[in-house]
Amino acid sequence: MTLPGEFGLIARHFRPLAGPGALDLGDDAALLDPPPGRTLVMAADAMVAGVHFLPDDPPETVGRKLLRVNLSDLAAMGAAPLGYLMTTAFPLGIQESWIAGFVAGLALDQREFGLSVLGGDTVSIPGPMTLSLTILGHVAPGQALRRVGARPGDEVWVSGTIGDGALGLRAIRGQVADDAAGHLAARYRLPRPRLGLGQALVGVARAAMDVSDGLVQDLGHLARAAGCGAEIAAEAVPLSAAARAALAADAGLLPTVLTGGDDYELLFAADSGDAARVTAAGRAAGVPVTRIGRFVAGQGVRVHDESGRDLTPDRAGWSHF
Amino acid sequence: MTLPGEFGLIARHFRPLAGPGALDLGDDAALLDPPPGRTLVMAADAMVAGVHFLPDDPPETVGRKLLRVNLSDLAAMGAAPLGYLMTTAFPLGIQESWIAGFVAGLALDQREFGLSVLGGDTVSIPGPMTLSLTILGHVAPGQALRRVGARPGDEVWVSGTIGDGALGLRAIRGQVADDAAGHLAARYRLPRPRLGLGQALVGVARAAMDVSDGLVQDLGHLARAAGCGAEIAAEAVPLSAAARAALAADAGLLPTVLTGGDDYELLFAADSGDAARVTAAGRAAGVPVTRIGRFVAGQGVRVHDESGRDLTPDRAGWSHF
Repeated sequence: MTLPGEFGLIARHFRPLAGPGALDLGDDAALLDPPPGRTLVMAADAMVAGVHFLPDDPPETVGRKLLRVNLSDLAAMGAAPLGYLMTTAFPLGIQESWIAGFVAGLALDQREFGLSVLGGDTVSIPGPMTLSLTILGHVAPGQALRRVGARPGDEVWVSGTIGDGALGLRAIRGQVADDAAGHLAARYRLPRPRLGLGQALVGVARAAMDVSDGLVQDLGHLARAAGCGAEIAAEAVPLSAAARAALAADAGLLPTVLTGGDDYELLFAADSGDAARVTAAGRAAGVPVTRIGRFVAGQGVRVHDESGRDLTPDRAGWSHF
Repeated sequence: MTLPGEFGLIARHFRPLAGPGALDLGDDAALLDPPPGRTLVMAADAMVAGVHFLPDDPPETVGRKLLRVNLSDLAAMGAAPLGYLMTTAFPLGIQESWIAGFVAGLALDQREFGLSVLGGDTVSIPGPMTLSLTILGHVAPGQALRRVGARPGDEVWVSGTIGDGALGLRAIRGQVADDAAGHLAARYRLPRPRLGLGQALVGVARAAMDVSDGLVQDLGHLARAAGCGAEIAAEAVPLSAAARAALAADAGLLPTVLTGGDDYELLFAADSGDAARVTAAGRAAGVPVTRIGRFVAGQGVRVHDESGRDLTPDRAGWSHF
């Protein structure tokens, strides 16, 4: 009996990604002995071609982005990665070379982030490629960072730089003139999950999440969970040199930076007396951290400039429906 | 700030499904303290409208089928359910009443099978509805049923009845005349994961899997894992009254029964001296179990009738590519 295409695909491409417990992807399910005395941390994110990535993005970065957006959820909880399950719905006419590139990207990131595939499913779809990944990580009991916990008076911090992903998408589409070095496009295609920083912020940050749907909207989630509002200063929001150049050329891109999403940076709250501890956590993790504002009594998120002028965008961020 | 549609959908419909550890679906990830001293069992299965279910299937049964095909993977490993994560890619024009029905079905089955949702993601898709679910269960260390383990001379057993799901799909399409009572259609839309039987077979069955892609193909997996072949008697394969009636009306449906898939019954190997223990496990679980053949030296799966005539179908089962 010759193995049919589906099983051949799995054996040729996905089996080499399998780690301990995955049983060579040959059983109905995977087995995992969780690290004793640790709490499991689990998240799932899906990506659809034409919605979350561009159909002609390189297959290597599509696989890595899928894994990294999920790793970013672990980072937001202060967790360390353990493994993942993935379902792939491929259009019928897909080239095997595309799948080989997709898997090569995953293999790179498995090594970089220290995890492996545990299981999954491969199906066909009469429509756009749709990829779904469930990530597993672990954290000490009671130590996970949560969205709830900020208090009025706490400072708002963010890691890395904001807006590169959203500007990168526009650069790839030719809507942002100057991305000659490809910095913005690379940030759109390859987010950098802040796993080390998330773990270093355990016991330091009062609340945290990752910025995926836009800085203003996601800060709104933290503020709402705390039953308060937040104010940020537009000029305090950390920008890459490429984003600064894009904004200098077109000041109308500011709402894109503040609400475009695809940042996968950590957004968190810390007591105003803890700035030195936050800075030390950033240094330990090798990731810049920047204070951009403050949680305040009231509700909603307000963005202002140096002179106090209101710059709050009309639309806070991305929603699918 | 008004909550946008995506977050409203999640709050209204999915949050009521959330169990302990899901943090009300309001964080980046879920937290779960795994049962101490148990091995985790994890699987993921995806379903695409038009491929795995019919676009006009009732939304209640779509949600339940998604959960049940995953529960069936736990059953095949002898595991007990713990929880699940789900990603849903809904077409933009979806009716909220459809989502309400989908969730109502999931709520029913959460109660029936004793588990709850831990997390997930809801996105839009410019194409067919695509649903992915990752299930978590647990089993005593070293006790999981595996596909590998059968030996030549072992008997081939199967639970319940075979062919109803594949005939049910054809009945819904009007290709099978007589399903007045709707038994076959119901079996296509609502598989019955054999969780109790799977757990009762731990320590009894030598190897096991669930029948999802067709009896002949799936038996081929068990035989290949054992480095041997298998023979089954067509008339020994257990059929429902509805399937028997369909076959009596059209004997040409036999390959559909043997290779059509969507059975979600357990297929397993047991020592020929263990028939009484297998029967007792079936009785304890309230599920009929039937001996249909034997693992033999060699390779491949052969189907024969009472007179020894070869009835092996040309195509063993379903493959996506």
